[in-house]
Amino acid sequence: MKKCDLLLKNCREVVTPLYDTARGAEAGLFNCTSNTDISITDGFIDEIGENLSREAAEEMDASSYVALPGLIDSHTHLVYGGSREEEFILRLKGASYEEIAAAGGGIKNSVHHTRSLTEDELFELALPRMEELLAYGTTTVEIKSGYGLDTENELKMLRVIRRLRKAFPDTIVATFMGPHEIPPGETEKSYMDKVCQEMLPRVRAEELAEFADIFVEKGVFSPESGKRYFKEAQKLGFRLKIHADELHPLGGAELAARFKAVSADHLMQISHQGIQALAESDTVATLLPGTSFFLMMKDYAPARSLISAGAMVALASDYNPGSNHGFNMQFVMNLAAMKLKMTPGEIINAVTVNAAHALSLSDRGRIAPGKRADLILLDIPNYKYLFYNYGINNVAKVIKSGMVIIENTRRISHMPQL
Amino acid sequence: MKKCDLLLKNCREVVTPLYDTARGAEAGLFNCTSNTDISITDGFIDEIGENLSREAAEEMDASSYVALPGLIDSHTHLVYGGSREEEFILRLKGASYEEIAAAGGGIKNSVHHTRSLTEDELFELALPRMEELLAYGTTTVEIKSGYGLDTENELKMLRVIRRLRKAFPDTIVATFMGPHEIPPGETEKSYMDKVCQEMLPRVRAEELAEFADIFVEKGVFSPESGKRYFKEAQKLGFRLKIHADELHPLGGAELAARFKAVSADHLMQISHQGIQALAESDTVATLLPGTSFFLMMKDYAPARSLISAGAMVALASDYNPGSNHGFNMQFVMNLAAMKLKMTPGEIINAVTVNAAHALSLSDRGRIAPGKRADLILLDIPNYKYLFYNYGINNVAKVIKSGMVIIENTRRISHMPQL
Repeated sequence: MKKCDLLLKNCREVVTPLYDTARGAEAGLFNCTSNTDISITDGFIDEIGENLSREAAEEMDASSYVALPGLIDSHTHLVYGGSREEEFILRLKGASYEEIAAAGGGIKNSVHHTRSLTEDELFELALPRMEELLAYGTTTVEIKSGYGLDTENELKMLRVIRRLRKAFPDTIVATFMGPHEIPPGETEKSYMDKVCQEMLPRVRAEELAEFADIFVEKGVFSPESGKRYFKEAQKLGFRLKIHADELHPLGGAELAARFKAVSADHLMQISHQGIQALAESDTVATLLPGTSFFLMMKDYAPARSLISAGAMVALASDYNPGSNHGFNMQFVMNLAAMKLKMTPGEIINAVTVNAAHALSLSDRGRIAPGKRADLILLDIPNYKYLFYNYGINNVAKVIKSGMVIIENTRRISHMPQL
Repeated sequence: MKKCDLLLKNCREVVTPLYDTARGAEAGLFNCTSNTDISITDGFIDEIGENLSREAAEEMDASSYVALPGLIDSHTHLVYGGSREEEFILRLKGASYEEIAAAGGGIKNSVHHTRSLTEDELFELALPRMEELLAYGTTTVEIKSGYGLDTENELKMLRVIRRLRKAFPDTIVATFMGPHEIPPGETEKSYMDKVCQEMLPRVRAEELAEFADIFVEKGVFSPESGKRYFKEAQKLGFRLKIHADELHPLGGAELAARFKAVSADHLMQISHQGIQALAESDTVATLLPGTSFFLMMKDYAPARSLISAGAMVALASDYNPGSNHGFNMQFVMNLAAMKLKMTPGEIINAVTVNAAHALSLSDRGRIAPGKRADLILLDIPNYKYLFYNYGINNVAKVIKSGMVIIENTRRISHMPQL
């Protein structure tokens, strides 16, 4: 009898995607089995089934838990200085974009504070955010630069991400996003020159990021700048991502498909042609409903049209200090059900395998032999409850690479009788 | 130097309503002081200020916490049998009310399961719900009957609530809500006869509830039944509550004002006359935005009109198995900001003093000398953050009647390096 490191006995349910990507006829398919054991060796899943006969270094009674693959958040801006709760309160009062900017808000606020902090300070700010996000069930997270907006500060942000990668092994994916905004004192052209001539080569030389992202939007970067950036980044070996068709349909999705980008993100205003382009490509349509919610927008991305057309859909948080200060992927799943009208199966695929695909990761996203043992154990009676029991944390334990790294607990004392 | 039981030293912020009720010019007023101590004796607050010179049996460094009064949830249906996640999944697919009923959903589902369980079983189901709700910062909660719909089962539910009151002293307020729905086999008239002739007197005789509530709505109870019920209940000494103007403007708010009900709840379809009636009364307008959110309705209650007119506004969760399986009052506060356009001050008053008023409680809801020491300590840099950092639990510690009863903690292990 082969010995394993950790044996989860009798999971109430094991819920997992069936395939390494889910689209078309498979978009909503998943597997759910009851009373299932999971055996883990050397950080990877090696066997799944009923009543496994395995000797185990450690055995856990999982009969009160529903097991899901660890959630994969493929789009965040988790490293930043400052916070923007003042701006959020102003927005609640109905302040316009211009009024918020005049009050010192907007992305320029985050750029100012991020520039003013040292690498050490930014790292210390990011650590508790990482821990909290793990505690809410995210076991893989992408983090972008993009609040530096000059060579020195973009590299500083990416070095912070590199330190986080060391602190949280196999958990973080780094994306360079110099072209997040045009900084003061630059034109689109002059800044894009710096991005392409200085930043991209430096990031590559120091191996600070695998992905390169750009915000193509009216008043930010044009599709032409997008093309130039994609060409330069691709030449240097970066994989591509894009903030596309968020506020205006500028053809960002089509551009992503043409350049074989790994993902096109946001897509609230994607055109019919854009949907077709993604459907015919391997570019993942990454939807960020938390941002629509936080910005109190009427528009959510057209998830149903994307799925019907055959596009691969992922869900992510867009966690950032301005347009969505929310990292709870369970709530993102709830919004996907309620606002995007995605089915539970489509959502489960979108926060696991399809999100992994958007990060070019094939070692995770499913509970299957050979996959990395990134698992979350939910304290709920069945997987449907995850959508029903909302706005809270349903995660009891988080397993990363086969090890229980988080246990959400609570000390309760007897109530006083006065 | 007078000795106290517990001294909270240097709260980062102490945030509290100024008055025992907040309406009109005071609707949005509150107080926020930094570096403030709170001293507690015999379960009540006895002094608040900077650098209090007090000897203390126990002292806590509260410098990393924002202190708020414990949240008061004045409208829940927390005791029930069964759960209705299947129905929620059906609703996500666009199923109509009729389709859900045909599939065994709706309130009749909860009635069926609640009737089939014993008092012990219902109590065991309710206990973890209570603990979770406390852990999310609710230190006072109203619970209604209303899934029994016959004398025996309504009394059973109220006895469960009585046992919960003993387990959680000074935490729970009981409301009789026999007229929640017309049970199968009864007409409105025949059931209302039973409610008035059997149930109300029995509930009174056994002192099982202080409040009496009714659902006045098309297809449920008419305003005429409401009048009859209010008269009978008032005669027996109950204070009155009403589920009013939720789906149709039937004049429930006006009825509440006329009978001096303590609260009129829901109010999504309240008329202009209804708003005026509440504004001129002491009846609290209790808004339940979580229900609009969970039911994916476009309509939220007209909070701004109610506040402008001078009505007293409270917020509650409506936690129940069908129309809102959500108990997180922090998220209710967020929805109040985003969907009801209430200001932070109005929201703080609405979940504390005005909610206390809706439960006829004058001993709590403010951080002030003489008030019960029900406090929540939030792990955030300032109170604005509570609205910004959403969809999660910001509560670190819960203090009930002067004692720390909940500490939300987390065990974190080092990450494995494969």
